[in-house]
Amino acid sequence: MKKLVNDKTQFVADMLKGLTLADDTHEVIADSVIVRKDRKKDKVALVSGGGSGHEPAHAGYVAQGMIDAAVCGEVFTSPTPDKILEAIKAVATDAGVLLIVKNYAGDVMNFEMAMELSEMEDIKVDRVIVADDIAIDNKEQRRGVAGTVFVHKIAGYYAEQGLSLQEVKAKVEAVLPNMHTIGMALEPCMVPTTGQHGFELAADEMEIGIGIHGEKGIYREKMETVDQIVARLMTELEKEIEGDKFIVMVNGMGGTPLSELAVVARYLKEYFDTKHLQMTKLFVGNYMTALDMQGFSITLLKHDDDYVAALDSKAASKYF
Amino acid sequence: MKKLVNDKTQFVADMLKGLTLADDTHEVIADSVIVRKDRKKDKVALVSGGGSGHEPAHAGYVAQGMIDAAVCGEVFTSPTPDKILEAIKAVATDAGVLLIVKNYAGDVMNFEMAMELSEMEDIKVDRVIVADDIAIDNKEQRRGVAGTVFVHKIAGYYAEQGLSLQEVKAKVEAVLPNMHTIGMALEPCMVPTTGQHGFELAADEMEIGIGIHGEKGIYREKMETVDQIVARLMTELEKEIEGDKFIVMVNGMGGTPLSELAVVARYLKEYFDTKHLQMTKLFVGNYMTALDMQGFSITLLKHDDDYVAALDSKAASKYF
Repeated sequence: MKKLVNDKTQFVADMLKGLTLADDTHEVIADSVIVRKDRKKDKVALVSGGGSGHEPAHAGYVAQGMIDAAVCGEVFTSPTPDKILEAIKAVATDAGVLLIVKNYAGDVMNFEMAMELSEMEDIKVDRVIVADDIAIDNKEQRRGVAGTVFVHKIAGYYAEQGLSLQEVKAKVEAVLPNMHTIGMALEPCMVPTTGQHGFELAADEMEIGIGIHGEKGIYREKMETVDQIVARLMTELEKEIEGDKFIVMVNGMGGTPLSELAVVARYLKEYFDTKHLQMTKLFVGNYMTALDMQGFSITLLKHDDDYVAALDSKAASKYF
Repeated sequence: MKKLVNDKTQFVADMLKGLTLADDTHEVIADSVIVRKDRKKDKVALVSGGGSGHEPAHAGYVAQGMIDAAVCGEVFTSPTPDKILEAIKAVATDAGVLLIVKNYAGDVMNFEMAMELSEMEDIKVDRVIVADDIAIDNKEQRRGVAGTVFVHKIAGYYAEQGLSLQEVKAKVEAVLPNMHTIGMALEPCMVPTTGQHGFELAADEMEIGIGIHGEKGIYREKMETVDQIVARLMTELEKEIEGDKFIVMVNGMGGTPLSELAVVARYLKEYFDTKHLQMTKLFVGNYMTALDMQGFSITLLKHDDDYVAALDSKAASKYF
């Protein structure tokens, strides 16, 4: 295995130390929770997290204007309820705490348990579950992927405005049905803690509908040009979306350079133009990754002026 | 070749369109020059560029507080003098234009010719040459690599302060001898326009002292743990540096995820502590890449309070 690893059992701990060294507004508590140093403002606190391996998600979004704490499990492994509880307690305010959870069985269960433990300590807490990945037909089982980053920013914006816990939750819940993502990979990720690839692809194959934990996709195809790949992903998204104006994210899976993501964005815009769709805002970069996977996802969020205002608002994260 | 490419002869043009779609403060002129829309301020204008493939360098640093134009050649290919001239003319002010050139024969020659052509049009223009890569012993032949991004920001800061062309040049020239970089790769880059790797490495080998154009390094070693790799690179850097306080960049080569770069940063900090060196500022991310190369470089800039102020100052680039 060729990865930049020292002791693979310490990979996440080492990474969190490194991320925190590079951002003096952060600190690590309870070994695996990144929190803002200037927390405890008089506003709804936002906690997210999940398995590691998706950097900059979620630790990189712990910032004024986004989330207040990120609970970081081992690579592709849900954090335990006690760690989530530590995060909640560290940032809880009288306004309450909103948990932003990606829809994976382990995450949902552990955040739920942490919520119950928090309530026993008289902390006001609620949650939203992000499930934007359309690769899975059954809506109950859809995974939370890149759209989660939009949720961090939009929730962060409303929390900063002083909205109540129920109001912030309602704002996020209005976003969720209007946000859809699908991804693809040219190469699987190599998991540094195991030395294994998530799946294997031939030299001329690509995988459509991958997850962000090295999960295989929904089908495999011979490699195509970018315009063809974009059309393929958009065809899936068009089964789900409503309207003709969208906020768009072209998200890199971690191992794909910005140059290639920009090429994707250029052909996605061409596709939009051909279909008379409007791209009101475009994000291109590594927002929610799967270690060093080569590939990208497209997220479409139905346009709303308020969402643009939220996404344009200043946040202190250098990753958004 | 598995790369996100449509027509490989259009790779750079497609990429520039995509980058510009994602940043509405930019526009593309003369097919390959990225310029600020709100240019022509009453300050020294800064122009940089070179071959493409180093994204976000240089196009992503075209922003208030950094550079005013980036001339983007084909992948790993110097831009031609006429394109550089277009960039100069587009941003030139009465205060003059400073060219920030990386030390490669083609770049130096073409920027020099463009400078002569500009002078014939009565544009006041000067240049600085960045040569921070210590992998090459001969100082005349040292390449400009990741440190160039620090130069963009520091020069941008002084230009914004209203310093004259000669003053900005002098500030940058004071930085250059105090900035040193060395890089390594786990995997070479795949050049999307040729389908070729820059070099080949065995499954258990790494390359030390690589360039940012797929150039081979100065030597090859069996893969090591991060602390060993960091010690190896620092041993080279310590032959060059003076002092004990440094501004540090851990720069990803494009295909290495943020998680691994953060692990590098953590062990670099440990090395600094062991050697009683001080890290006064730390940058971790993809700043000056070589397409999808897996690896990183370390840049050390001798500490100066003014440089920290410059690097901390607000810039509108989302990549710095």
